[in-house]
Amino acid sequence: MGYTQDLGIRAKTAEPVISSASTKIKNDALAAISKALIDNTELIIAENAKDIESAKENNMSEAMQDRLKLDEKRIKNMADGVNELIALNDPIGQVVDGFTRPNGLRITKTRVPMGVVGIIFESRPNVTVDAAALCLKAGNAVILKGGKEAVNSNICLGKIMRDALEKSGLPADIIQVVENTSRETTNELMRLNGYVDVLIPRGSARLIQAVVMTATVPVIETGAGNCHVYVDESADIEMAVNITDNAKTQRPSVCNAIESLLVHKNIADDFLPVIAERFKTHNVKIYGCERTIGILGDTVEKASENEYSTEFNDYTIAVKVVDTIDEAISHIRKYGTHHSECIVTKSLDSARKFQREVDAAAVYVNASTRFTDGGEFGFGAEIGISTQKLHARGPMGLSELTTIKYLIDGNGQIR
Amino acid sequence: MGYTQDLGIRAKTAEPVISSASTKIKNDALAAISKALIDNTELIIAENAKDIESAKENNMSEAMQDRLKLDEKRIKNMADGVNELIALNDPIGQVVDGFTRPNGLRITKTRVPMGVVGIIFESRPNVTVDAAALCLKAGNAVILKGGKEAVNSNICLGKIMRDALEKSGLPADIIQVVENTSRETTNELMRLNGYVDVLIPRGSARLIQAVVMTATVPVIETGAGNCHVYVDESADIEMAVNITDNAKTQRPSVCNAIESLLVHKNIADDFLPVIAERFKTHNVKIYGCERTIGILGDTVEKASENEYSTEFNDYTIAVKVVDTIDEAISHIRKYGTHHSECIVTKSLDSARKFQREVDAAAVYVNASTRFTDGGEFGFGAEIGISTQKLHARGPMGLSELTTIKYLIDGNGQIR
Repeated sequence: MGYTQDLGIRAKTAEPVISSASTKIKNDALAAISKALIDNTELIIAENAKDIESAKENNMSEAMQDRLKLDEKRIKNMADGVNELIALNDPIGQVVDGFTRPNGLRITKTRVPMGVVGIIFESRPNVTVDAAALCLKAGNAVILKGGKEAVNSNICLGKIMRDALEKSGLPADIIQVVENTSRETTNELMRLNGYVDVLIPRGSARLIQAVVMTATVPVIETGAGNCHVYVDESADIEMAVNITDNAKTQRPSVCNAIESLLVHKNIADDFLPVIAERFKTHNVKIYGCERTIGILGDTVEKASENEYSTEFNDYTIAVKVVDTIDEAISHIRKYGTHHSECIVTKSLDSARKFQREVDAAAVYVNASTRFTDGGEFGFGAEIGISTQKLHARGPMGLSELTTIKYLIDGNGQIR
Repeated sequence: MGYTQDLGIRAKTAEPVISSASTKIKNDALAAISKALIDNTELIIAENAKDIESAKENNMSEAMQDRLKLDEKRIKNMADGVNELIALNDPIGQVVDGFTRPNGLRITKTRVPMGVVGIIFESRPNVTVDAAALCLKAGNAVILKGGKEAVNSNICLGKIMRDALEKSGLPADIIQVVENTSRETTNELMRLNGYVDVLIPRGSARLIQAVVMTATVPVIETGAGNCHVYVDESADIEMAVNITDNAKTQRPSVCNAIESLLVHKNIADDFLPVIAERFKTHNVKIYGCERTIGILGDTVEKASENEYSTEFNDYTIAVKVVDTIDEAISHIRKYGTHHSECIVTKSLDSARKFQREVDAAAVYVNASTRFTDGGEFGFGAEIGISTQKLHARGPMGLSELTTIKYLIDGNGQIR
């Protein structure tokens, strides 16, 4: 516990400095970090090469090696991302609400930093920089625990950012990278009550579930997305095809892509052959219910419970023909992960019913689920997409890395 | 797990009905519950008598027996409390934010119910009614787990409320009282992921810590309050005496009462004798640092680390003379529980510095900490006081029992 607790003590010691730092100080630090990343491009590539070498030794897949790799362009992108935060409004100090009580007490609900944010993530070393910079802009200290496979890259990026902080006159411990990537340290970090104010896991469903089940500090659950498009009986077929295709194939590996397609029985005969034709151009594999197979033929494999509950993250989709919008909503209630759900319809009643009754972070009428994203929502940056209901839901920007404080001004009031 | 999971399934089945119920339906149900409580006063008193009898057999203290006891007046108070919720604004449907993106997507951030709320509490059976009614008004289903000592009272109150719901045409399972009060059931409830959207423990610090350490569902930590008054060197002495006395003695058993008093060295000689004199009228026991003892004499016992970190909840206080406001803030950072903290001062600089640097839900200038309360804040009702930073901080009213949903309206947008 000594090592992990020490991380917490250091973070809590640095926290007051960054939490009360002005926007200018924070922006100057971001500029210094951005510049330091560019200046140290060669060093970063050299340290990253060690991780790539280990990855090869461990027979990591090419795709995973690619996620791990940092080159000049990617380092430039990271540095640019840090710079872009400078232009964003500082959420700290925003007055969220305020009122004067009958006894004269003035109560001001004010946005303040969360404190110490823990991030547990996998693979992509750019998360080290993205998350640290977002936490810094929101006035938080951060403890970053990346994957073992990227440890040299992460430590190097951490050191560069810490040096830049010190040169800006800020404590290096505002940003800490966990160097000991053992499971024990990770578990201790998840249970560092009193030091970590919120823990955000980013990565596979397995990682996120492990954090949810182990952590005793407050957690924001992110990521899992078993999303649906429901094509209502009144849908415009061309629009339904475009939205379904986009939501499935524009980038199938991400959480806001759809995994299942629900189709009203009265439109299924007209719609399914057209979307199937479109799917062919992307080699989308289709699982379907009996009625789907009846319409599309034997190229469709029979869908079971398993297909409807799987997040394929691939060019694969499960299709079901439903009798009513209620059946569609029930299906989503059973299999959905409360992320993003879409109805394509011309009916105002259906649109309203779907938005009211579907329990998800983002409920779309006639638009692709792929828009559930901090950038697409106009937040300028994103720390993840919350699929829980506590604190934050949907894309999380700077505001979601803050909390509030009640400032109460009196002139001697007592009860 | 069967019994506990069944509670979860029932709650999730009832949830859609109450989450989409109109304000009128919810208010009618509250009125029906209020009336049913009055109509069943005799039954409630009879069932409560069983708990009181067990309490006597188990040699429960008189004070605890009093907390447990329900009489006509207390039942009337509960019923009135339920009725008062009718007048409060319904938070559901409130548009929190909204904007149109350059691509024409209209995004509306709307307040929606949390879903299923779990409440774990001790002793006072009135929590069964208060919490159920608040959850109902906010459109949530609720699972209530009270203490074994109040099981007959709680089951009876639950049954009365469930009958009233059914008579109002709503599913009884919107309100469920856990009848099996075993530790195993409680632990299962804390780990009922997928069924319980948030768990709120109410009771002793021990109960709350047990929930924080065991739960895998999202928790809102409530209650612990090691609060301070800091008397700055520029304080008005009479105001400082009145605020300190009120914050300590008006109701010492509650979480927003103070436990420690910090005094600037330049005012200590003038202030401490006056507050000590006032404390005598309430028989307040004083622990103090060396300098406090130097001023007040040997009637003051030496304060150790232990006294500064204890929530006495009694007529006892720990006093420390500090050299600077920074020392006061450091002390609060070390021993405080992020609940309510107060400075008494005439200095604008000191007031600003204290409000900026003290990390607590409510930071007071020249007013008693006893105002940290949903009623005093004008929320009309309170489910507890959050001492964590995630989701809610300070007094939690109806809004804190809700989450948001992004409704997105398009006309065929794709990425």
